[in-house]
Amino acid sequence: MSADRIDLNVDAGESFGAWRMSDDAALFAEVSSANLACGFHAGDPGTIRVALALAIEAKIAVGAHPGLPDLVGFGRRPLTMTPQQVHDDTLYQIGAMYAFTRAAGVELHHMKPHGALNTAVAEASDEHAEAIVAATQAFDDTLPIIAVAGSRLHRAAERLGQPVIAEGFPDRGYAPDGSLAKRGTEGAIIHDAEQAAQRAVRMAKEGTVEALDGTVIELTPGTLCIHGDNPGSVATAKAIRAALEREGITITAF
Amino acid sequence: MSADRIDLNVDAGESFGAWRMSDDAALFAEVSSANLACGFHAGDPGTIRVALALAIEAKIAVGAHPGLPDLVGFGRRPLTMTPQQVHDDTLYQIGAMYAFTRAAGVELHHMKPHGALNTAVAEASDEHAEAIVAATQAFDDTLPIIAVAGSRLHRAAERLGQPVIAEGFPDRGYAPDGSLAKRGTEGAIIHDAEQAAQRAVRMAKEGTVEALDGTVIELTPGTLCIHGDNPGSVATAKAIRAALEREGITITAF
Amino acid sequence: MSADRIDLNVDAGESFGAWRMSDDAALFAEVSSANLACGFHAGDPGTIRVALALAIEAKIAVGAHPGLPDLVGFGRRPLTMTPQQVHDDTLYQIGAMYAFTRAAGVELHHMKPHGALNTAVAEASDEHAEAIVAATQAFDDTLPIIAVAGSRLHRAAERLGQPVIAEGFPDRGYAPDGSLAKRGTEGAIIHDAEQAAQRAVRMAKEGTVEALDGTVIELTPGTLCIHGDNPGSVATAKAIRAALEREGITITAF
Amino acid sequence: MSADRIDLNVDAGESFGAWRMSDDAALFAEVSSANLACGFHAGDPGTIRVALALAIEAKIAVGAHPGLPDLVGFGRRPLTMTPQQVHDDTLYQIGAMYAFTRAAGVELHHMKPHGALNTAVAEASDEHAEAIVAATQAFDDTLPIIAVAGSRLHRAAERLGQPVIAEGFPDRGYAPDGSLAKRGTEGAIIHDAEQAAQRAVRMAKEGTVEALDGTVIELTPGTLCIHGDNPGSVATAKAIRAALEREGITITAF
Repeated sequence: MSADRIDLNVDAGESFGAWRMSDDAALFAEVSSANLACGFHAGDPGTIRVALALAIEAKIAVGAHPGLPDLVGFGRRPLTMTPQQVHDDTLYQIGAMYAFTRAAGVELHHMKPHGALNTAVAEASDEHAEAIVAATQAFDDTLPIIAVAGSRLHRAAERLGQPVIAEGFPDRGYAPDGSLAKRGTEGAIIHDAEQAAQRAVRMAKEGTVEALDGTVIELTPGTLCIHGDNPGSVATAKAIRAALEREGITITAF
Repeated sequence: MSADRIDLNVDAGESFGAWRMSDDAALFAEVSSANLACGFHAGDPGTIRVALALAIEAKIAVGAHPGLPDLVGFGRRPLTMTPQQVHDDTLYQIGAMYAFTRAAGVELHHMKPHGALNTAVAEASDEHAEAIVAATQAFDDTLPIIAVAGSRLHRAAERLGQPVIAEGFPDRGYAPDGSLAKRGTEGAIIHDAEQAAQRAVRMAKEGTVEALDGTVIELTPGTLCIHGDNPGSVATAKAIRAALEREGITITAF
Repeated sequence: MSADRIDLNVDAGESFGAWRMSDDAALFAEVSSANLACGFHAGDPGTIRVALALAIEAKIAVGAHPGLPDLVGFGRRPLTMTPQQVHDDTLYQIGAMYAFTRAAGVELHHMKPHGALNTAVAEASDEHAEAIVAATQAFDDTLPIIAVAGSRLHRAAERLGQPVIAEGFPDRGYAPDGSLAKRGTEGAIIHDAEQAAQRAVRMAKEGTVEALDGTVIELTPGTLCIHGDNPGSVATAKAIRAALEREGITITAF
Repeated sequence: MSADRIDLNVDAGESFGAWRMSDDAALFAEVSSANLACGFHAGDPGTIRVALALAIEAKIAVGAHPGLPDLVGFGRRPLTMTPQQVHDDTLYQIGAMYAFTRAAGVELHHMKPHGALNTAVAEASDEHAEAIVAATQAFDDTLPIIAVAGSRLHRAAERLGQPVIAEGFPDRGYAPDGSLAKRGTEGAIIHDAEQAAQRAVRMAKEGTVEALDGTVIELTPGTLCIHGDNPGSVATAKAIRAALEREGITITAF
């Protein structure tokens, strides 16, 4: 396959109170959609409002980015929750974010889980994956879920009939089974912006990525993840955007 | 005036995690609407879901009950916030509660602020009162606000054109100016269930209450507040309900 | 062996803000030491002060009971932390509790981890067990740790030379390897107060317990755990105390 | 009077989890003591450990910097607490910080309240001022308190016999009564580093400051506050330090 358009999504709104994280405005200039933290792993009501206003100004789509209730750990530490707890925490956070989009007169565009919650529903358990899909579906059965391509979450959304968009990670290494290489292992993070950009182009044009051992994996992504929380984030985002545009691929929300 | 129907509302869903507060099911049998805590002063996603299910089973209406971000103080300690912060925190909490009502297929019926937030918007500042009305209105310009009869919140809702329901407190003493007597002062709390019941009847039938100094105050309430968080709560609720029904007044959500 | 004295310990101070948990005063009448929550999984500064005053009045010893930073989950949901995080969170909580004992002029008697933190350092990893011992030791190298008899925590304390007291659980079933049977499995909880009391006597007199499959396990406990957070807690505590005293065993802090 | 030595103190350790605030290491090179956040308004156990290590490396003294339990508001929003709550929250935070200094083998050097807590005990109520002194004294009756020169806290410490060090603010305007001009009013903040430096020299050498209306106020400070949380912080700190040293004044902890 060969796509002529793709979405670039970035996590944002991850400041908290007096503390700043990422340069949302700079990142929003490079992407087509933003996943805004909902107050559990990051974000607070004021931060949500400000980030949403920046996203609207940048004319990009806005999704809810629910996370684990672990502020000090930024939602990155695995926490054992029941599927019911995953359902309830997700529904709560989707609603909180929805209120700001509704007040601002814009659409809540999608839902993408954060950090260790995303890993849990991507890799750990079909029950948890189905719980997060069910929470999303109970709120709005047309709200798309961004899921790691091929993950448990991806399959759970398909099983339950919820719209799902497969996500590719240009700056992450892949294991031969199509899962993301664990952070901290060799090749898990691609630091070179140009290399990430070339992977993005291949993901968008061919729908594939090469795993660490050379296996070619079918991703067919509808969106590519741009990381926003490290020093080179904006530069990598710019490189990916430029490379895609050079190939004639339109960057636009799904 | 003489009303033939009135709403009885109770704060509920105020458990948190492993901690229980109030007997929601017993209280729901006596009232026509519940204000559910939204996770800031009390409540958590699981608590919201359980309390909502009880309210639906009891066939009573459900409103959002946003509070200050002070869990350890149960939202009862005055906290200086900007009007913008009041707006943002309220919008967040309304949305979180709305998500559960939407998922359950029931209507979000009203908004009533909690504790020190309610006092702030009732008594302290028109700017804060308008901020909480604006947050409610931005979310849904048809969502009624329950406001202490005659309070700043009451008047702000009228000014901004948001539906507002005046609230009477059968078990609270009134100052001559129509505000609630401060907790801790003589006569501020009416402990006798029958006395509270007689005041409820007068509020419903005549629309008035006698202040501590004998002044007759016009309240014209559309709803009466039933307190749920002390040992005699259920007994007082039963007494008020029975007295109203003896007078032929129907207890039903507005 | 045959002990003529043993400690009975109970978790306490597990209220939070406006929410009550357990009847600390009633439990303190039956035990010889209390583990007070330190504000992470339960407890807050006011709760600590009140619980400590009750313990002093009851003339029982007081230890720190650090838990995971998961208030809504009551510290019972496993959370993946680094050993360094376990160290830091434990040191923080020990210090907070110590301040209240120092201000009250009493000794901080011991440290016992709570819930999922206790399970992690008992079963999951020697690194985590050593981290919690190291934090305790860095604060006070004479402060005894209460550890599940035979657990990783027990052995880590012995390896690092920190005083450690083995703990038995009269109302919990044991697996053949000496670990506690998982909650939710058949026989994991002993609900009958008299049966729990007989197991307590055997633990104190013979130092042993019979596992679910009949295996006899050597525990040699210096303290027995009394649970305080369920309806029958006080009755079970009374039964255990009475049975021990009938056998001439003195209940006293180690 | 003419002092030949003075302390420069800075608030530090105010990061939280994944969020950074201030450049502690750079500031520590310019000051003689640091007030480390204790986890309520900012800071967390890992942040405390790291900040303390930096302070030890910089060979500066370390104090506890307790704040209000309002993380999202950074402890800067006034919260109505009882004196007992102020006492308990302060004791808790002092203990938490003490644990890290004790584990590191260094002295806990002083206590200085943060933000709206400091304002409350400086200006609002003698009862609250005495409560925070009492908490400090109950923990250690030799632990010095840093208090705004002439404030209620200053006088409460003197009344109760707790060591107290008067604090001057070189980069803040003063009202004629010796209190700090309210933030947001004309002249409340002195942005010019050299002007702040000249005020610091006068405070150290003569013990005085000129109020906004020209009144000369006696401060006789033992320590000067260096702000660390704005872009020019390090530059202002360097300017103050250099100016004091040019005058032959030694910068050293009290």
